[in-house]
Order: sequence, then structure tokens, then C-alpha cells
Amino acid sequence: MAFDIPALRGLAFGGDYSAEQWPEEVWTDDVRLMKIAGVNLATVGVFSWAMLETAPGRYDFDWLDRLLDLLARHGIAADLATATAAPPPWFSHAHSESLPVGPDGTRLWYGSRQSFCPSSPAYRDAAAALVEQLGTRYAGHPALAMWHVNNEYGCHVARCWCDTSAEAFRGWLRDRYDSLDALNTAWGTAFWSQRYTDWEQVLPPRQTPSFANPTQQLDFHRFSSRELLDCYRAERDILRRLSPGVPVTTNFLVDRWSVDFWAWAGEVDLVAMDHYLTAGRVDPYADLALIADLARSLAGGRPWALMEHATSAVNWQPRNLAKPPGRLRRDSLGHVARGADSVLYFQWRASRSGAEKWHSGMVPHAGTDTKVWREVVALGSELDGLAEVVGSEVIAEVAVLLDWSSIWAQRHPSQPSVDADPIGCIEQWHAALRAATVTCDFAPPGGDLGRYRLVLLPALHLVSEADAANLVAYVAEGGTVLVGPYAGVVDEHDQIRLGGYGAWRELLGVRVEEFFPLDVGATVALSDGGTGRVWTELATADQAEVLVSYADGPLAGGPALTRHQYGRGTAYYLGTHLDDPALRALLTRLAVDAGLTPILATPPPGVEAVQRRHPDGRRYTFLANDTDAPVEVPVDGSILTGAARVPDGIQIPPHGLAVLRDRC
Amino acid sequence: MAFDIPALRGLAFGGDYSAEQWPEEVWTDDVRLMKIAGVNLATVGVFSWAMLETAPGRYDFDWLDRLLDLLARHGIAADLATATAAPPPWFSHAHSESLPVGPDGTRLWYGSRQSFCPSSPAYRDAAAALVEQLGTRYAGHPALAMWHVNNEYGCHVARCWCDTSAEAFRGWLRDRYDSLDALNTAWGTAFWSQRYTDWEQVLPPRQTPSFANPTQQLDFHRFSSRELLDCYRAERDILRRLSPGVPVTTNFLVDRWSVDFWAWAGEVDLVAMDHYLTAGRVDPYADLALIADLARSLAGGRPWALMEHATSAVNWQPRNLAKPPGRLRRDSLGHVARGADSVLYFQWRASRSGAEKWHSGMVPHAGTDTKVWREVVALGSELDGLAEVVGSEVIAEVAVLLDWSSIWAQRHPSQPSVDADPIGCIEQWHAALRAATVTCDFAPPGGDLGRYRLVLLPALHLVSEADAANLVAYVAEGGTVLVGPYAGVVDEHDQIRLGGYGAWRELLGVRVEEFFPLDVGATVALSDGGTGRVWTELATADQAEVLVSYADGPLAGGPALTRHQYGRGTAYYLGTHLDDPALRALLTRLAVDAGLTPILATPPPGVEAVQRRHPDGRRYTFLANDTDAPVEVPVDGSILTGAARVPDGIQIPPHGLAVLRDRC
Amino acid sequence: MAFDIPALRGLAFGGDYSAEQWPEEVWTDDVRLMKIAGVNLATVGVFSWAMLETAPGRYDFDWLDRLLDLLARHGIAADLATATAAPPPWFSHAHSESLPVGPDGTRLWYGSRQSFCPSSPAYRDAAAALVEQLGTRYAGHPALAMWHVNNEYGCHVARCWCDTSAEAFRGWLRDRYDSLDALNTAWGTAFWSQRYTDWEQVLPPRQTPSFANPTQQLDFHRFSSRELLDCYRAERDILRRLSPGVPVTTNFLVDRWSVDFWAWAGEVDLVAMDHYLTAGRVDPYADLALIADLARSLAGGRPWALMEHATSAVNWQPRNLAKPPGRLRRDSLGHVARGADSVLYFQWRASRSGAEKWHSGMVPHAGTDTKVWREVVALGSELDGLAEVVGSEVIAEVAVLLDWSSIWAQRHPSQPSVDADPIGCIEQWHAALRAATVTCDFAPPGGDLGRYRLVLLPALHLVSEADAANLVAYVAEGGTVLVGPYAGVVDEHDQIRLGGYGAWRELLGVRVEEFFPLDVGATVALSDGGTGRVWTELATADQAEVLVSYADGPLAGGPALTRHQYGRGTAYYLGTHLDDPALRALLTRLAVDAGLTPILATPPPGVEAVQRRHPDGRRYTFLANDTDAPVEVPVDGSILTGAARVPDGIQIPPHGLAVLRDRC
Repeated sequence: MAFDIPALRGLAFGGDYSAEQWPEEVWTDDVRLMKIAGVNLATVGVFSWAMLETAPGRYDFDWLDRLLDLLARHGIAADLATATAAPPPWFSHAHSESLPVGPDGTRLWYGSRQSFCPSSPAYRDAAAALVEQLGTRYAGHPALAMWHVNNEYGCHVARCWCDTSAEAFRGWLRDRYDSLDALNTAWGTAFWSQRYTDWEQVLPPRQTPSFANPTQQLDFHRFSSRELLDCYRAERDILRRLSPGVPVTTNFLVDRWSVDFWAWAGEVDLVAMDHYLTAGRVDPYADLALIADLARSLAGGRPWALMEHATSAVNWQPRNLAKPPGRLRRDSLGHVARGADSVLYFQWRASRSGAEKWHSGMVPHAGTDTKVWREVVALGSELDGLAEVVGSEVIAEVAVLLDWSSIWAQRHPSQPSVDADPIGCIEQWHAALRAATVTCDFAPPGGDLGRYRLVLLPALHLVSEADAANLVAYVAEGGTVLVGPYAGVVDEHDQIRLGGYGAWRELLGVRVEEFFPLDVGATVALSDGGTGRVWTELATADQAEVLVSYADGPLAGGPALTRHQYGRGTAYYLGTHLDDPALRALLTRLAVDAGLTPILATPPPGVEAVQRRHPDGRRYTFLANDTDAPVEVPVDGSILTGAARVPDGIQIPPHGLAVLRDRC
Repeated sequence: MAFDIPALRGLAFGGDYSAEQWPEEVWTDDVRLMKIAGVNLATVGVFSWAMLETAPGRYDFDWLDRLLDLLARHGIAADLATATAAPPPWFSHAHSESLPVGPDGTRLWYGSRQSFCPSSPAYRDAAAALVEQLGTRYAGHPALAMWHVNNEYGCHVARCWCDTSAEAFRGWLRDRYDSLDALNTAWGTAFWSQRYTDWEQVLPPRQTPSFANPTQQLDFHRFSSRELLDCYRAERDILRRLSPGVPVTTNFLVDRWSVDFWAWAGEVDLVAMDHYLTAGRVDPYADLALIADLARSLAGGRPWALMEHATSAVNWQPRNLAKPPGRLRRDSLGHVARGADSVLYFQWRASRSGAEKWHSGMVPHAGTDTKVWREVVALGSELDGLAEVVGSEVIAEVAVLLDWSSIWAQRHPSQPSVDADPIGCIEQWHAALRAATVTCDFAPPGGDLGRYRLVLLPALHLVSEADAANLVAYVAEGGTVLVGPYAGVVDEHDQIRLGGYGAWRELLGVRVEEFFPLDVGATVALSDGGTGRVWTELATADQAEVLVSYADGPLAGGPALTRHQYGRGTAYYLGTHLDDPALRALLTRLAVDAGLTPILATPPPGVEAVQRRHPDGRRYTFLANDTDAPVEVPVDGSILTGAARVPDGIQIPPHGLAVLRDRC
Repeated sequence: MAFDIPALRGLAFGGDYSAEQWPEEVWTDDVRLMKIAGVNLATVGVFSWAMLETAPGRYDFDWLDRLLDLLARHGIAADLATATAAPPPWFSHAHSESLPVGPDGTRLWYGSRQSFCPSSPAYRDAAAALVEQLGTRYAGHPALAMWHVNNEYGCHVARCWCDTSAEAFRGWLRDRYDSLDALNTAWGTAFWSQRYTDWEQVLPPRQTPSFANPTQQLDFHRFSSRELLDCYRAERDILRRLSPGVPVTTNFLVDRWSVDFWAWAGEVDLVAMDHYLTAGRVDPYADLALIADLARSLAGGRPWALMEHATSAVNWQPRNLAKPPGRLRRDSLGHVARGADSVLYFQWRASRSGAEKWHSGMVPHAGTDTKVWREVVALGSELDGLAEVVGSEVIAEVAVLLDWSSIWAQRHPSQPSVDADPIGCIEQWHAALRAATVTCDFAPPGGDLGRYRLVLLPALHLVSEADAANLVAYVAEGGTVLVGPYAGVVDEHDQIRLGGYGAWRELLGVRVEEFFPLDVGATVALSDGGTGRVWTELATADQAEVLVSYADGPLAGGPALTRHQYGRGTAYYLGTHLDDPALRALLTRLAVDAGLTPILATPPPGVEAVQRRHPDGRRYTFLANDTDAPVEVPVDGSILTGAARVPDGIQIPPHGLAVLRDRC
């Protein structure tokens, strides 16, 4: 499922082209400018259902014919959207039961986007009919390079609580559990008198007087992710049938963590990811790196498509900071560094009206005599010189386990502490590795871990018995693992493992008996001089060696960090949250002990380093300098772009990104 | 549309008289006390529908007859309300479809006030029937001085999203756009697949999965303001027919900025305004001055009626601070200073029960042996001595452009920065002028600007082509204008002007290409030593002279403040938000350069000065001292009240307000 | 209504036993462990309706038979629940009209707990049918010690706004007011045109455009409390009929202050109270002490049952802090100190699944090799040695007046200041007494006050004429009272007493004319060097002696604290909020002046002291040390537990609690 469109000959460059928003005379100017910028791929028609089908079964493809012909004539490939992400008003008006409904019964109306219940038969039928038409008409069109199904599934409406969804949820649960008894057992309905005696009684977790059943909520997340996936698969199957060989995908959006992309990754012909910087973050690139690493991991390590990002500001944050000069390049190449073989933006031409008119584009409102356009053209040109990286793969020897069910379960209300957010933990651990220039993949807990020297569990609260055993086998066969706090505590039904917390008591040689989350802002001293935050655990190191213990507080003397030899491997346990530097030091030490070499031995602060490699040994080192001053880095290799040679290595300008080639 | 009720002989003094809340024996005491206090105007019956019409078509006017007779006998004029602001329970119970509905479908019930959908035919019919009765019965009553239609339109329910409103909205849109094509173009429905193909599909902007269409929202604001205005006009027309010559008005309330009062101003026989101080503001009088200036501007510069304010605390703020001794006078006279010819309170006698029982009145719960009553009586007496100011007009040579459509458009979500609120900008600029003792009017962007030496645009984001040309013509003919940030960026359909932002590129000689809002709390240094906040703009001064540029940050070297000679006038551009002192210095300099003289050359801190003038040259200077110490001010004139003569001018006590008369 | 179950022979020890959540093989282990821990009482079946009635009228009591037999065999008494707190899904699915509805019309669904409208006939009928079955079957069971009706009435759904509730509300109002005229007068419907002309028009205070009628809201609180009480009484009456002599109760939960427990106290055979510590409070034991004192007061001073508290963390707070070692004992004995004759937990065995799986239990998830279990066993053993305290009563000579109607009225929106919360005031005054080791009861304003030396009114905003007279009579006959701010201002209909605020102008010799709440964070200096916060009052001390006056601010010179001899007693007035130390000094002085002796003359900081006494003169002093260091306290008596003898008294370890016996 790698991104590999031979027609592009190099990195893909371009973006969403909402031609339907502009008079056709603008199109002529568009293709002229695209050629100037080096654009070779345009995503077409994402929100054009209302323009393509103007009444039930009445289609108007003329404008799209002309648009695709124009692109083809200019040698610009089309990523053709199925346009099903926003049903037209006529559809929603005729099928108001297809509008999504919130947990409190509030219906969400059209006049925005994504206003459909994922389980709605009317929506699914109408979408399929449109896709059938599109597939039939454009299967052989010379511009067609790939299919873009729908758009950012689950971005606004990841779950729907309406009666249609309730019926579908019951169907999914029948498949999952076979019997009501099994459901009652899995959901623990003996608690609070929730035992179901007829399938008809089962509902989505609508608004309730107190906390809803957590397993019901967890299953509703799973069901909802699956419903969206079924929407995708229905469209994909039509397209595969009508245009075999043309890759089909949809653009993933991870922000809300509402869709289980491990399940989706196998269903797309190539992994496409959207990413937007969040203004005002201390380190805005931490999130970029994480999402890029996740995209690559979803693609099985193979190149992926960066399907959307922004040339400058977005429109939907409280403060939409524009990108200072040069940052467009830094941002885009930062994705390439982590395995993207494309640089695609939302969107080509900034909209003049509508809710996203303040979202930047490749062609700004102010035209081509602008900072943004000049940087777009420069980057397009620069990408030509980087064509040789296409197809190379990122080298990662560390895996961070990540699981959507676990995230959902841990984010349920009624947990020990609101401060212990799983995504926050994963972000902190990922940032620590990045600061150490240690590249990591993300992996599902049941995945093949044998290729990694080190496996990390920053937040794997829920784990099935099988997945727990997978980790044990990995260590037994020589692997190294660091298990973080609150890990493996519940099974796949969100039921607690009894007798001492966690799935890995034997593996870790540690028995946890009670969780001691800390009060807001409170800390605990550690025996190594460090500090624990947010969370601590009352534990006994039955079998493990205590490396660090609590030095004060109610758990003083108890183990905070332990090591246990297990089989041919080593299992570490960490029961608290560390400060960033301490965490980085710990992870670096474990990585080195596991035989791994960071890209830079002593990375300068604010420098990011990643490597891509071809099977033939050509290796590309991407080095970003995210500081306000030039940085010298002692590395070898041939400079492809973005740096100057200095006696002991290279110098990278402020907020620059260098690419070097060597051979390994 | 000036406030001019000859019967009052002097400034109007009084307030809302909710006689229906009290047994009739209290009425006798009321009129006795009114005479003691010098009350000459009482607003009667505002919330008495349920007492006047006890069942459909069954009226009980006996008590109101007695009340009006009583007032007439004591020479107290009546501002007679139409009582339509709160339908009785019997009405709402019988017509539940007339209850307003929120964007999420939540119905708002009766048992409070203003619980009607402005578009409800049932409500409109019932209101008209009541007004017909009132007009018929009281047209010739000797107490009747004016009609008070409804109350504070739009205060709680400015918009309604119900099906009735939807139908009315469609009707309004058909009138506005003629064709669906025109609507689709204006709303930019090519974005997000929102193209409408039948009028029946068009809805108010109800709750949606993501941002609703901004032009739909803008038009819904316009429609809703118009629906309320239609409610007003229907009542007014009945009253004009039945009692020709008796002025008809309604009390404006600006707080929510939900009603376009430029459109309303021409429909009332006199402008009446309510105003309440907001407790805890750094300068609570800033808002008083702004609203009073706006009231006067709505009245075309002529005297207006202060219809409601408070003798002490209100009841609806988080902390309802009582007025310290003397502030009642300061507050009331502060309105007179800015053109009010009345001092009317809500309300005469503080209520014993109900949701507003903690709102102060002229007669407090504790009776007449109270701070409030003594101050009321003293003020009533003092107003007698100020009768000569009645009819005089405030002198203003600066206009601040203000437009409700622009405010609505700029407050739409999905804007570049939540920190850049248009009202905040207008307030800051107004406060800077007030600190400089430069009096300003507000003006609509299409108004006659020729009478002003200086025109300011603190926040005019949306402007039509015609209104933009109006400003250009003003400068071309010799005017001076200062255009603030983010100005003229969109047209009347909230569509962006392309090719460089703003409607006045030629006028300003500046081309803006991208907005750079600042992160929360961030600042940027300016070349004159000042500081920019909240917002900056990437601009090029093609033709203009750069007065101040950015000194650091991503826009370092770019223009922040420019000047451009255009025709016979001068156009300034400001691209950022200044600190208060810097803004005041800038506006003072521009005013002086434009030939304007502040009332005080060097105003002492905390001193406010305004002047009113009769056509015969008699001029009144109102000077407020809003500090905790006495202040000396070097002014001439005969002291009418509130100051003592000192060698170099006058001395005003702490929190005092002086009135002087001279001749100009 | 004291807690007195002879079968228990000593303090009750145990907790909620949710046996239905576990396979029966676990039950065997449960009773084995109960015996080890000394458990003698288990609450059974609280949330088991779905297990007991699996379809309408189809009952399954077999498992409960076996469970109760098992308990009986092991000599463990059963507190048998009626299981009506959470209707089963089959019931709610069949009777969706019985689901509760919020003020905005949002329906709350099943899948949680307490999802019933208290007025629902379907719910009431189904609950009665179940209770009839339970009462019939288990009336004579040897394990049955008491009945536990429902659970924490009003915890989640204290009020319901549905149509069924509306109908019931109208019925309650008809009973209360007889005529609509009386209702209109009481509610003050002349305000805002709210006059009702037919009972059918009257509704619960649903969501409204502005503030709803306050008396309507107040009456809806009263009605709702009564509806829940009626639910309780219906079940109780069945049980009394079927098993005469077996005590019937329900567990009170005060947290939300939504149910008027003065009205409930007379309806239960013994007062049972739940209490949970709130993590992160500066002094978490302040709330424990307050609720325990309230429980005792509800029980008329007689021993009460602590029905639920936690062995360690709960699950429903943002951060659920576990109890450090030793605190379980401190917490539990803290209740005994204030009159509890039981130590019962929620729950026996921590749940494995469901929304409360993170709530601690007596048997933790990790089993018996745990801190919690060891402390449970130790405490069970220690309680054996304290059996002699059973039946003794707490000595309190101070009464704090508390009234739910007053709390509801004062918490209505549209009050002078959001900072002046009645519960906050009551908590502060209670904490001041506790710090002074002066024990207080709570009393209803109309209760018998003659037994108290001092009566305090920290927040009695609403008071009826009769209750006001009760206080006057108390003082006239020699009592001492301190009346706090904003007291007695409204009558039972929330209507203001006119002519000067408050019901006690003659008693206090003070006339209050206006309230001056302070701005957020503002303070005012007092003449004794103290500081006033939150609230001040413009008052005149007509007859009273001024002890402290305001030293700055707008009220400078006015009275803040006064004293007035009235009849044979003394009445103090306080018009502002004091700092904690000043309040403690004031209350201590008043208590001493009233002839009261604090338990400790100079209490060490962080030490709590309470005494219980048998009629025969045996007296038990409970002393808690809530500091991190050992404390020496100069007290006499024989040490029963928790302290060591030192030369000048006893030493209590950190966070320890000592019990001494002497004779008085």
C-alpha cells in the first residue's frame, strides 16, 4: 500500500483543486500557474456532489469532463474524488433521517459538510450511485491517476446516535457477540442493573443521568469506525470493479483519534494522510513528526502520500497564525523526511467565500506577487532535485505501541485521573525519541515486533490476551520493552485483570496493587533526583531489579522504574510520568543498550534528523534546524539541498532543512 | 427623530412604572413621591399584557384607565407601552408553535419574557389586536405623551430557528435575491457542495457538523433584524393611524449587537436608548459614553431619550455592584452630556418579587430613608436647573464608521483570530478619543461624511462597493481617514476582494497580501518604539509614505502605519492594534492635523469633557471627574452645577460632573 | 430514628455487597473474608432489579435466596435493598416516557443509573410491584436486619421537566395554593406578564429566553424533593406492612443539596448517610465533619448510620486520589466521632467492569495482599474495641441554622453576587467552629432552639414569618444569635420584606437599606483591623451597639458587626464575610460569652476534637491529628485507641485519631 504513481516521475506536488468554485476562465490561468510551479497532481471534485448531481439521478459531468481534459492536456495527473463527503441540500432535504444526530438527540443540519449518518441506507445508496457514474465515466480518462474516496472520514461526524445507527449498532453487536448473554458478560451489565433481555433494548450510549456503560461506549467507538470503513469499502469496491489497476484511497485525518486506522490501512491501495500544524504549540513540529511517523507506519514502512497540508494559515483554529517566510518549505520537507513521496496542499487556490475562505492556498487571494506563491514555486523547483528519494524507506528500529481501542477506553470518563491522557503520553515519548534523533515506528500491539530492537508502551491501557502474549514472546526472544504506567490493565472488553494490575506481571516481575494519581500540579521526588508527575503506582518488585524508587510521598520506597530479565530479553517497568529530559535520557539509554545508534550522537537542541534508504544502499539524511540561529551539525554526505559545507560538517540556516545523500 | 415632548417643559425625569405589580393603595403613594422627586414622565404597562388581556379578546382596561387618570390628574405624562414584549401564558400555551427555537432545536418556554418567535403570525396577530385596542382607547387620553412599542427588541431572542422562521427567511431571501442562482452565487455554495436547487431546501443556519456557510449566517442576521423591525412597524403603523401626532418609539438596547439600528433609526419618531453600566470594568464610563454617542448618532445628532438606566445595582450580572454615593448623578448626567434630554430609569419602584427583584429602582425596597431616594430627589431638583440644555446638540467633528453587517461578518467563527473582536476595536478607539476630549459621532459607512474633519475605521471588515466609494469620495474632497486593520476585506456578501486585501488599495497606496494575527499575548515591536498586539499584516506600501514599520518578527521592515495623499485629502493605514496611549496619541495627532481642537488641550487623567450647543450660540460644557480626588480644570464659563470656581478655572469633586455655560 | 440494630452487637462494619456481579464461587470466598475482617452487615441487591425481575412480572429470586441464606449461615446481617434505583432496560425500553427529561427537553436514556422520572406512574407501579415481592419473600428471613429503599435519591436526577412531571407539579401546586390567584400572588406573576389563567398553563421552569420566575423555580425544587420522598414512602409503606418492626431507611446523599432532608428525616426509621471525600480540597476533613454533623442533626442527635464511604479512591472526580496509608482509619473513625454507629463502605469487592470499576472497595482488585485489605482488617478489629461507644450521643451546644428552601432561593440566578454562595458560607462557619473544637448541630429554622447556647445564621436568606419569630423568641428567652449577611431577606415565597431588609430588624436593632457586594477579589478594611470580603451592606445601627465598622470604601463608617440586647438574650449582626481566622475568633468569643467551653482551650492547628456521651456519664473524646507530625494534646481520660500517654496528656501520630474515655 505504498504511494507509487509512476506517471508522476518524482515527488507528487500539488493539491486540492476546487475548480467548481471558479469561472472557467480562471481554469486557464490555473493550469498555466500549475506548470510554472511544477504541479503534477491535482485532487479534483472533493466537494462537488451538488454540482455533479443536481437532482436525484440527474448528472452534470460536462464541467468535469472539460476540467479533466484540460488537466490531461497539460500533463497534470488527477486524483479524482468521489465527491461523497458532503451530500447536496436536495439530498438532505429529501432524506432528513440521514442527518446525523448527537448523543443528546440534537440533529445536525446541512449547510456545512459531512452531514450524513454513516449508517444511513439512503446516503449509502446515493453515494454508490454517484460513484458508479464517476467510475463508469472516468475509468479510462488519461488524467486519472488515482481515486480519492470521500474526505477525512470521521472528522466532524465520527459517530451518530440516531435510530438508524442504533439498528446498525445492534446488527454489529449481534455479529460480534452472537448471544445477548455474551454481550451482557462483556459489558458487565450486572453492574447498575443494565442486563439486556432483548436485542431491541440495546442502544448507542446516548445521554444518560450518570456515566454510561464503558464497554458499550468502547464498542460504539469500534462500531462507528467500522461503519465509516464500510462506507469507504463500498465506494472502493465499485471503483476497483470499474477501473482495475487505478489505486483507490481516502485521506486519513488522525486529529480526533476517532477512527481505527490500523483496520483501515489494509483497505487502501496507498496510505494518504492529512496534517495541519497547530498554532501556538511550544514545538509545532512535534505533532508533524508524530503524524508523519504514524502515516508511514500505517503504510507498513513504505512511502505514503501527504494528501493535505497548508501553505500558510488555516481557518479553524482560535488564532490562525500565518507561516513566517521559509516555514512552508520546512513543513513540507519535514513530511518527505519521514517517508512522504508527495507534497500536496489543501488547496490550490484560496477560496473567495465559504467557511474556509481564510484557509491559505498555493495561489493566495492576493495573487502571485506574494510570499506564499514565491515559496510554492521555489519548493516545486527544489522537489525536482529530490526526485531520487522517491521510493526510499525510513529506517526505524524502535516501535511505539498504539491502539485505538485502548485510547478510547482510557479516555472514557470515570478514570483515575483526567491528567493522564493517552495521547499526551504517546506525544511525550515520541518527542523524547525525536529529540534523541531516534526514529520510531508506531505498531499495533498484535503486530510483528521482531524487526525492532526496542518496543515502548507509553499508553497501552487496554490489551487483549493474545496481544499481551505477543509482547511477552517478543521479549522472550530477545527484545527489550519499556512498559509505561497503567498498562495492560484491562482486557478487550475493558474489564480489569484481577489479582494485581496489568497483563505483564510475570514479564515485568512487578505487582501493582493500587494507582495513586497525583493532585493537580503535584510532584513526587524520585531516588535518582528526578521527579514524577501526574501518576504513581503502589507496586511491589517481586522479581525485578529496582532502578529508581519514590523518594517521598505516600509511596516512598516503592519502585518507580524496574528492570527484569525475561527469557533472552529485558522488560522495564515505569510507574510514573517523567520530565521531558529524564524521559529522553531514559529512552536514549534503553535504545543504546538495545544496540541502537541514534543518528546524531549529541543532537544540538532543536535539530531533527531522519533517514531514508533505498534497497541499493543510497541513504538520505534529513536534518531540520528548528531554531532561530544557524546550526552546525557534524554529518557526512553529499548535500542535496538546504545546507552549506563547514569544516566539521554542515551548517543549516535557521528554520532550514537539509538533505544529504550517502551510502550505507 | 429628536426627543421633544413639549408637555415635559425641561428634561424628562422618571422611569418605568410597573403599577400592575402593586396594590392600588401604593399608587397613591407613588404619585405623591413622584411629585416630590420631580418626576414628569412615567413609562406604563411594559409587561402588562397578561393583565390587559386575560383571555383571547377579553380585555381589562379598568386598572389602566385608573392609572392613567391618576397620572393625568397629577400632571405626570405617560409613555404608554404596547405591552407586547411578553405574551401571556394563555397565549403561549395555546400557540406553542410561537415559542422561539434555538439553532439546536431547543424550544424556549414562557415563564420568563420575550418568549416569541418574531416571525410567528399568531404572535403578530395577537400583538396587533392588543395595540388596536390600546390605540383606540387611549389615543386622546390627557396623560398620553408618547407610545412605547414592545421592549428592547432582540435582547434575549434576536433570532429564531424554527420552521416558521425558516419559511419567513426563505421569503426574505426571495425578495433579496430574486433567483436561486443569485443566492447560490452570493452565498458561495459551490464550496462544500451546498448548491440549492429549490427554495424549500434553504434553512436558517441551524446546528451543523462543522462551520455553517458564513453568508447564510450573515443574511440570517439581517433577516432577523428585519423581522423584529417588521414587528415594530406593524405596531407603530396602528398607533400612527389611531393617534396621529403622538410620537411612537421603542427602546433600543445595543448590548448584543444583534439588531441593525441604522435601519431602525428612521422608523422611530424619536430615538430612545437603554443603557446599563457593567460592573467591574476598568473604566465603566467608557461604555456609557460609547452608547450615548451611538444613541445620539442614531438620532442624527439631535437630542435623544435615555429610556432606561439604573439608580444603583442591576440584577443580571455575575456581581451586581451597587452605585457608591454620588454615582447615580454622575451616570445620569453623563448621558445628558452626550445629548440625552431625559433621565429615565428602570424602574420607579423596585419589584418585590420576580426575576428582577434585585434590580434597583428610584424607590428602593427600603423606602425613602435611603441613599438612593435622597439622590433621586436631589437629581430631580438639579435637573430643573438644567432645563435650558433641552434641545441643544452635541458638537462632534470626528466620525467612527460602524456597521452591523460588518460586525456580524467579522464575528463569524472561522476567522483569522478570535482576539480581533470588532466591538473591542471600536471601544478602544472610542476610549482613546474620549481620553483626548475629542467628541465623535458614529456613522454608517454610506452616510454623509462631509461634515466631519476626520473619519475613523477601527473595524470595518465588510463594506459594499458603494460604501467603499463613499469613503474614497470623502477623502478626495479633502477629508482625512484612518483605516484600521482587516478593513474592507469582504463585500456585502462576505466574499473576499481578490488581488490584495481591502477595498481601498488605491486610496491608501498600500497592498496587503496576508494577515499575520499574533499568538495569544504575543507582541511585535514597532519602529517608533511602540508595540503591536493581536494582529499584523504583511503589506507593501506601493504609493504610501511609511510612518511606522515593524521592528521585529516575521514582518520586520514592513509597513505598520502609512500616510497617503489622495485627492485633496489624506488616507492613513494602520495594520496592527496599538496600546492605548499610542492609539490616543495617534488619533489626537490626526485630529489636530485635520484642524480639530480638543475641548481640553491637556486633559487631566480621568476627566471627560463634552459640549452641547444651541443654535443661538449658548454652549454647555459637561466635565466629569472620574477619579477619587478633586480635579482642577482650566475652563471658562458660568457654572450651572457641580463645580467650584478656583483661580485658574474650576474644581470638580471626586466622581463629580460639572456643567458650565458660555457662548460660542 | 437512631441507628440501632441489636443483632450487630457493636458498631456495624461492612458495605455494599454487589454479589450479582460475581460468580457464586466468589461468594464463598467473600463470606470467608468478611469473617476475617469482622464484617457484620452487608447491603445487598442495590442495583439488582434487572437480575431479580427479568421481564414484566417474571421474578428470579433464587440467587438472592442463596445469597441471603449464605449470609445468615455466617451470621452476617443483611441490609436488603429494594433494587429500585435503576430500572432494567426492558422496563425503560417499554416505558420510554418514564425516562427523565432535562429543562431543555433532552431525554436521558438508560444504560447508566437512576434513569427514571420520579413522577412516572409506570415507574412507581413497577417499583411497588417489585417491593411487594421482596417484602413478601424476605420479611422473615433470618439475615434481614433492615431495608434499604432505592439509593441516593436525587443524586443524578433530582428534577424532571417532562410532561408527566408537569402534570404532577400542577397537582402539587393545586394542593399548595388552592387557587390560581394564590399562586399568581405567591409567584409574583404580575412581573413580566406571567399571570396564569388556567392550571393547564403552569409548567416546570423549562429553558426560557431570560431568567425564569424564581418562585416557580423554588417551588419546583420543593415539589421535586417531595416527589422523590413520595417514591420512598410508597416503598416504605409496603415494607412496613409486610415486615413490621424491621427498620426501613434510604441512604441520604447531600452533595447536590437537591433534596430537603429535614422533611425526609422523619420518614426514615434510622438516618443513613453517604459521604465521599473530595480530592484536592485544602482540608478534606472539613466536609466530612460537616456532613457527619448534618447526618447526626437529621437523626435528632441520636446515632446514625454511615451507609457508604470509600476505603480509598472514588471514580467520579477529575483526579481520584487514593488514600495514603492510615487515612482509611482516620476517615472512618472521623464519622464515628460525630455520632455514626456504623462503618460501611461502598463497596465490599471492587467491581471488575462498569462505570465504577475504578471505585475502591474493601477487597481490592489486587486481592488481599494489599494496603487496603490490611487496613480494613485492622480497622474491623479495632472497632471491636470501640463497641462501647455504640448508642452514645454527641454533645453540641451550638446550632447552625440550615434550610434547603433558603439554599435553593439564594442559588437562583439573578442574585446580587455569584460569589456569595450559601453553602460556602455554611462551610466556612462550620470550619471555624471545628477549628475551635466547638461542636455544632445543624437545625431547621423552625426547630427547637432552646437547648443551644448559641445559634448561628451563616446563610439563611429565606425565612418564613413563623420561623423568623421562632428565632426572636429564642433570643427573647435568653439565647444568643449571630445573624450573617443577606439573612431573612425574603419570605417563603421568595418575596422581599419591604422597608429595610431582613426579618429581624427589631431583634438586631439594625436597618439594612442596600446590598453592596464586592467586585471579584476586592476587599474592604474593617475598624478592628480585619478585612471584609465578597459582600457588604449599607446599614444603620438604629438600636444596636456597633462593634466593628467599615474603615474604607463607599460604606466607610457604616456598621459591619453589631450587638443588641433583646429580651433576656443577645443578637449579633454581621454584614460582611470575614477571613477564616477572624471568623473563628468571633465565633469562639461568642461561644465563650454564651457560656460554652470548647473541648480544647487552645487547640493545636489541625487537631479536631469531638465528644460522645452515654446517659450514664461515660464520655468519649475523639481527637484527630490531621497534620504530618505527631501532636501532643493536654487531655485526660483512658486511651481506648490511637494515642500514647505523654507527661502532659497524649501524643497522637500524624493523621491519627485517638479515642479516650472519661466520665462527666
